[in-house]
Amino acid sequence: MRYELYYWPDLQGRGEFIRLALEEAGASYVDVARKGKRGMVAMMKILQDRRDKRPPFAPPFLRAGKVVVAQTANILHYLGARIGLSPRDEASRLWAHQLQLTITDLVVEIHDTHHPVTSWLFYEEQRPAAKRRTKDFWRYRVPKFLGYFEKLLAKSGGNYLLGTKLSYVDLSLFQIVGGLRYAFPKRMKRFEKKIPRVIALHDRVQKRPRIAKYLASERRVAFSQWGIYRYYKGLDQ
Amino acid sequence: MRYELYYWPDLQGRGEFIRLALEEAGASYVDVARKGKRGMVAMMKILQDRRDKRPPFAPPFLRAGKVVVAQTANILHYLGARIGLSPRDEASRLWAHQLQLTITDLVVEIHDTHHPVTSWLFYEEQRPAAKRRTKDFWRYRVPKFLGYFEKLLAKSGGNYLLGTKLSYVDLSLFQIVGGLRYAFPKRMKRFEKKIPRVIALHDRVQKRPRIAKYLASERRVAFSQWGIYRYYKGLDQ
Repeated sequence: MRYELYYWPDLQGRGEFIRLALEEAGASYVDVARKGKRGMVAMMKILQDRRDKRPPFAPPFLRAGKVVVAQTANILHYLGARIGLSPRDEASRLWAHQLQLTITDLVVEIHDTHHPVTSWLFYEEQRPAAKRRTKDFWRYRVPKFLGYFEKLLAKSGGNYLLGTKLSYVDLSLFQIVGGLRYAFPKRMKRFEKKIPRVIALHDRVQKRPRIAKYLASERRVAFSQWGIYRYYKGLDQ
Repeated sequence: MRYELYYWPDLQGRGEFIRLALEEAGASYVDVARKGKRGMVAMMKILQDRRDKRPPFAPPFLRAGKVVVAQTANILHYLGARIGLSPRDEASRLWAHQLQLTITDLVVEIHDTHHPVTSWLFYEEQRPAAKRRTKDFWRYRVPKFLGYFEKLLAKSGGNYLLGTKLSYVDLSLFQIVGGLRYAFPKRMKRFEKKIPRVIALHDRVQKRPRIAKYLASERRVAFSQWGIYRYYKGLDQ
């Protein structure tokens, strides 16, 4: 199966969670909208297709033959089973998906640190609100979310969140750690001492041959000020 | 199967999407934390159980025999298949789940209209930000989300989002309409003209015998200023 991934071309965003899974699995895929102007046109055509009975609400979405799946966690749930990145039994698959949905919640909260008021204002126009949001995010939310994953790693019975075998959830948690390091280098450096297992998982993922190769390639979009994770000095005290 | 639903007792919140599905299906269930103090203790015990290898991150969660499932959309995905509220084929189930995840995204945005800066400040302490957020929410986001569901209803080939048969997604959309009417009576009244199919779906759900009975019962928690949807005069211009 040759998968077609559709996502905005110039940012990691939510598409990156899918890219990491496809890359780790060595799956055959095209990152359609990154294939020049024609790719972008193809993506917009699907989004605006009036005859499509099951149109995606927004990117990312994945085309696998005739099936089009949207919503990041849903794509990973679908894809994971097909490319060997999720467990075999139904209860464990639901569990993996549940964790991915928790990461989805965290992603929204990370984005909202720099744009709490609205996405239709620049960061500079909502700086005091962003500072307040970021303070509470690091005080209450990061410890709760990453503390949860740390606890899970302590009891999973293996090196990965689900035990001895890597799943797409591990790849997503790797991406979260990288993103927080990019956006909040100082804060994250201090916090990492509290989540040694999460950091060890990050390092383990980073060293996997296919992931290492991908990260060094042009296929990996760089972190930037357009994504979920943005660096603002004022937020990283 | 007797299901156990665990959710904060005094608010509709995310638990309401599950309650509506259980009620419509006539499923046997206990709303555990609403059964007095002992119920709340039982919920906290599960949340704090250190030996549990797959602890939920937060309520709502559902216990079905030995399985504990968390994350609203995941619970509905699991439950829908068992109580006859989701389609039979895998592609359609994924599609239903995808729509539910889009509703999940909308729920966060509805909540954030009154608490955009942080949940650790009162509304009164973030009123200007809430006004700005609400303005953009009604200008860009409500038309995008509800317009999407209106479009789907126009092409579903039946009275419901997935066609001729009711699914848990219809119940959730019903709840969204009710919540927006509670929080923004004036704005919603004006907007409803643009989404006649969504409103007709809401009315259809409301009249279903089991739903009507549930809404009139003490099992239905009332809308309140503690939930996702809150009424503030200043936000409903």
